[in-house]
Amino acid sequence: MTEDRLLQLSELIRARRGADPSDSYVARLLAKGRERIAQKVGEEAVEAVIAATKGNAEGLTSEAADLLFHLAVLLESMGLSFDDVLAELDRRRGVSGLAEKASRSGVMPPRKGD
Amino acid sequence: MTEDRLLQLSELIRARRGADPSDSYVARLLAKGRERIAQKVGEEAVEAVIAATKGNAEGLTSEAADLLFHLAVLLESMGLSFDDVLAELDRRRGVSGLAEKASRSGVMPPRKGD
Amino acid sequence: MTEDRLLQLSELIRARRGADPSDSYVARLLAKGRERIAQKVGEEAVEAVIAATKGNAEGLTSEAADLLFHLAVLLESMGLSFDDVLAELDRRRGVSGLAEKASRSGVMPPRKGD
Amino acid sequence: MTEDRLLQLSELIRARRGADPSDSYVARLLAKGRERIAQKVGEEAVEAVIAATKGNAEGLTSEAADLLFHLAVLLESMGLSFDDVLAELDRRRGVSGLAEKASRSGVMPPRKGD
Repeated sequence: MTEDRLLQLSELIRARRGADPSDSYVARLLAKGRERIAQKVGEEAVEAVIAATKGNAEGLTSEAADLLFHLAVLLESMGLSFDDVLAELDRRRGVSGLAEKASRSGVMPPRKGD
Repeated sequence: MTEDRLLQLSELIRARRGADPSDSYVARLLAKGRERIAQKVGEEAVEAVIAATKGNAEGLTSEAADLLFHLAVLLESMGLSFDDVLAELDRRRGVSGLAEKASRSGVMPPRKGD
Repeated sequence: MTEDRLLQLSELIRARRGADPSDSYVARLLAKGRERIAQKVGEEAVEAVIAATKGNAEGLTSEAADLLFHLAVLLESMGLSFDDVLAELDRRRGVSGLAEKASRSGVMPPRKGD
Repeated sequence: MTEDRLLQLSELIRARRGADPSDSYVARLLAKGRERIAQKVGEEAVEAVIAATKGNAEGLTSEAADLLFHLAVLLESMGLSFDDVLAELDRRRGVSGLAEKASRSGVMPPRKGD
């Protein structure tokens, strides 16, 4: 198993894919399908936004954990894992690193013009 | 530097905290304050939800990268990092592991009764 | 024209449908398509959530106006209007009114078991 | 009672404010407080976004009804009503109408530069 704890989360979720839904929350979520899991991701993000707006550090830690967890399940529901997402971040950092040498514009600018 | 790529992301963002906002997207975001960053997290979550609903794997990978990135900035804005979030996931897994021995109920049940 | 100001909003938006996108924000939004408009609805909802969490009454009023406006455009993008939404609320109230006579359970319970 | 159906919704919700929470969903929500109601608004918006992305007209109508309903409760929780929101939309239309005479820029441009 990888040493990377975020990848471990994706691996754990993949391992639960075939479990009996009556035994596993992950298997139950996956059985509900991609849209229902996407809805959970949206809901957890709203809770994280509320915790952060209140300045509640403990709340944000807990909601961010919920958000990572459900995002891992959403990725799994589409045959993806956090490995793909980290590779995308690495790719941008490479691009950004090259850009930074030229322009000193900083790490990982967003793809979009905001 | 840690082997954990998610922690590397938090470390990179912390390193940019003191940068000149005119040089760094991260420094600009942090200067706008917690609420504006929380808003970005909410917006990226909405984009991830839309990509997943469409079954767009490339889009979801990209939006999930944006979401992790802005979540890392939001955590930093409150003096937290992904280390705290991974510790919370570990803590739940411990609790869940013990629960599983007794009940076979699966990995990391959510804290809440849904 | 209807006395219902929410329907007036839908009517105004329908009237702008055929406008030149370079002249009309509504026409520009409609030209971007349903997903981009849905994204705006999600973003305005996040802003309303933040304003409410802060207890900012002026901010919530403004964000709720943005939300109604973009929701009207989203409905229009699918050939719907607020007339359909108000009819759905009326329908529920009728159902709820009948239910209330029997059970005194209050106005318009949600359809879902929450 | 007003002829405006959106204002009727706000009035109905205000009338339920003092009801026994065991009898009324609205009274139960108001008792949970502003943040919990804001969370519901965010959740209903996510569901509307998903229905629209799928092109599900019936689903969008239903989720938009849920969204208006919970937005009315959120406004009430802060001593506001849809009357305030419609006044804000009217105010912008006035500003926009004047702007349109000068620039032909269309109805109700958003306050923000997007």
